[in-house]
Amino acid sequence: MSGSKALRFAKLEGLGNDYLFTEDSPKNPQRAARLLCDRHYGVGADGLVLIMAPDNKNEADFQIRIFNPDGSEAEMCGNAIRCLGKYLYDRGNTKKQEINVQTMRGIIPCILMVRDGRVYRVKADMGEPILERAKIPMVCAAGEEEKKVLKEKIYLEDHNTFEFMALSMGNPHVVIWVEDVDNFPVGKYGPMIENYSLFPNRTNVHFIQMVDEDHIKQRVWERGVGETLASGTGACAAVVAGVLSGKIKRKAKVELRGGILEIYWSEKDNHVYMTGPCKDVFEGQTLLI
Amino acid sequence: MSGSKALRFAKLEGLGNDYLFTEDSPKNPQRAARLLCDRHYGVGADGLVLIMAPDNKNEADFQIRIFNPDGSEAEMCGNAIRCLGKYLYDRGNTKKQEINVQTMRGIIPCILMVRDGRVYRVKADMGEPILERAKIPMVCAAGEEEKKVLKEKIYLEDHNTFEFMALSMGNPHVVIWVEDVDNFPVGKYGPMIENYSLFPNRTNVHFIQMVDEDHIKQRVWERGVGETLASGTGACAAVVAGVLSGKIKRKAKVELRGGILEIYWSEKDNHVYMTGPCKDVFEGQTLLI
Repeated sequence: MSGSKALRFAKLEGLGNDYLFTEDSPKNPQRAARLLCDRHYGVGADGLVLIMAPDNKNEADFQIRIFNPDGSEAEMCGNAIRCLGKYLYDRGNTKKQEINVQTMRGIIPCILMVRDGRVYRVKADMGEPILERAKIPMVCAAGEEEKKVLKEKIYLEDHNTFEFMALSMGNPHVVIWVEDVDNFPVGKYGPMIENYSLFPNRTNVHFIQMVDEDHIKQRVWERGVGETLASGTGACAAVVAGVLSGKIKRKAKVELRGGILEIYWSEKDNHVYMTGPCKDVFEGQTLLI
Repeated sequence: MSGSKALRFAKLEGLGNDYLFTEDSPKNPQRAARLLCDRHYGVGADGLVLIMAPDNKNEADFQIRIFNPDGSEAEMCGNAIRCLGKYLYDRGNTKKQEINVQTMRGIIPCILMVRDGRVYRVKADMGEPILERAKIPMVCAAGEEEKKVLKEKIYLEDHNTFEFMALSMGNPHVVIWVEDVDNFPVGKYGPMIENYSLFPNRTNVHFIQMVDEDHIKQRVWERGVGETLASGTGACAAVVAGVLSGKIKRKAKVELRGGILEIYWSEKDNHVYMTGPCKDVFEGQTLLI
């Protein structure tokens, strides 16, 4: 199967979210993502990441485009960007341990943590949280556009009521405290809240449980996907919401089904920093596309 | 990631069932299968196939061992053996177009159909169906051990009744005719019948719809797995049952969710022959194990 036409790629995963990275340039990346991400007929992954030169070499070291399994383009993905750091350093594409990555959501600075010549953790600057109601986006009454959403209620058809916080990390997140997240019916309430009338673009939904003031447990209902093992922006949103509710510290451990992220919402620059693991899975080549 | 320690493999698929093939020898194949077949933390597949030399070169050309994602060993798999034929011929491991493959269920003869130097279909001899009730196995009253199971009834707790046929292709199969297989609630009745008290080893369950006397549509409830895209032994069982019920011919097209198999139950030797597609997906290497 070797030959000049084969597309070369590597799969890496962060907290169980797996991505295919390629430096090749498929002509139709939407089609390539659909074919390659299919887990039975293709290679199988949560997304395809194209690695390219940045538009401006003074501003960024690399540029990425991220495509979902359905071919749509994702603006940013915290788990993918951590894996990217490992891909680039371990393969010698960069010798820097601080890199700037151009994404559709702007330039993301990343710090690569290296042991024995290989990256084992990456810290990514996920930017500032967006707290204004209209920008999340949520339906607004006149004059409410800039208000924070800290203590609102959702009334569901089954007569259950949930108090929630909402914010955006570039994508919308609803955060709900629960007593026992392991046994919470995420599959039941996730889709109801995702599609609730308050959210014109739908929303990601997070159920979090307090373990300690610097430790929460979280389950993730991803918009358009369902329950997933982890969400980088979701963990950031959970900590921001937890801090705003006065319950947790600005630096907290977030325990997701796929593993642990460390989130730090800096007082100094208002940015949210996410640190977590990333692993090589395999390298391959395919004639599929 | 290249290096002497990396395990080299290829993924191929037949009707959407995907398998990893390797000529390397992982020390602990059960553990290798669990790690490699995991779709998020590993490479992702329905099984791991080790390709080895046969015990006796006069009897077989190759030997395989097939491991399920949970690490257990599978006796045989029709979709995997078709993919094996393509793997071996396309990579030059054999120049023969008729090969004998040693499996835990004995030697399986395969005919490789070649176009432009590559295998595009494989015909596998799936052996004789086992019709004796005790050998399927099913619970037997005294004296019934050797009877065929052609028209028996299952009485379910929801007061539904299904008439079924049962037989073994080395593994147990129940076959049930339905009017509209696309809309049949396979997810509801599959597990009820799989675990029905008549089947001491549980059973695979197949719902089939007559299209023509040489064409059926089939959906597959796989024992221990759930609904799957295709089952090679299941398609064989469906045609044998269809022939025994007098409804279809000995040579029939079986339309499964994952694609089409051609099944032929020979009058001459009583063997069931399965012909179907197989495709290369990718090649890779990993340091995961």
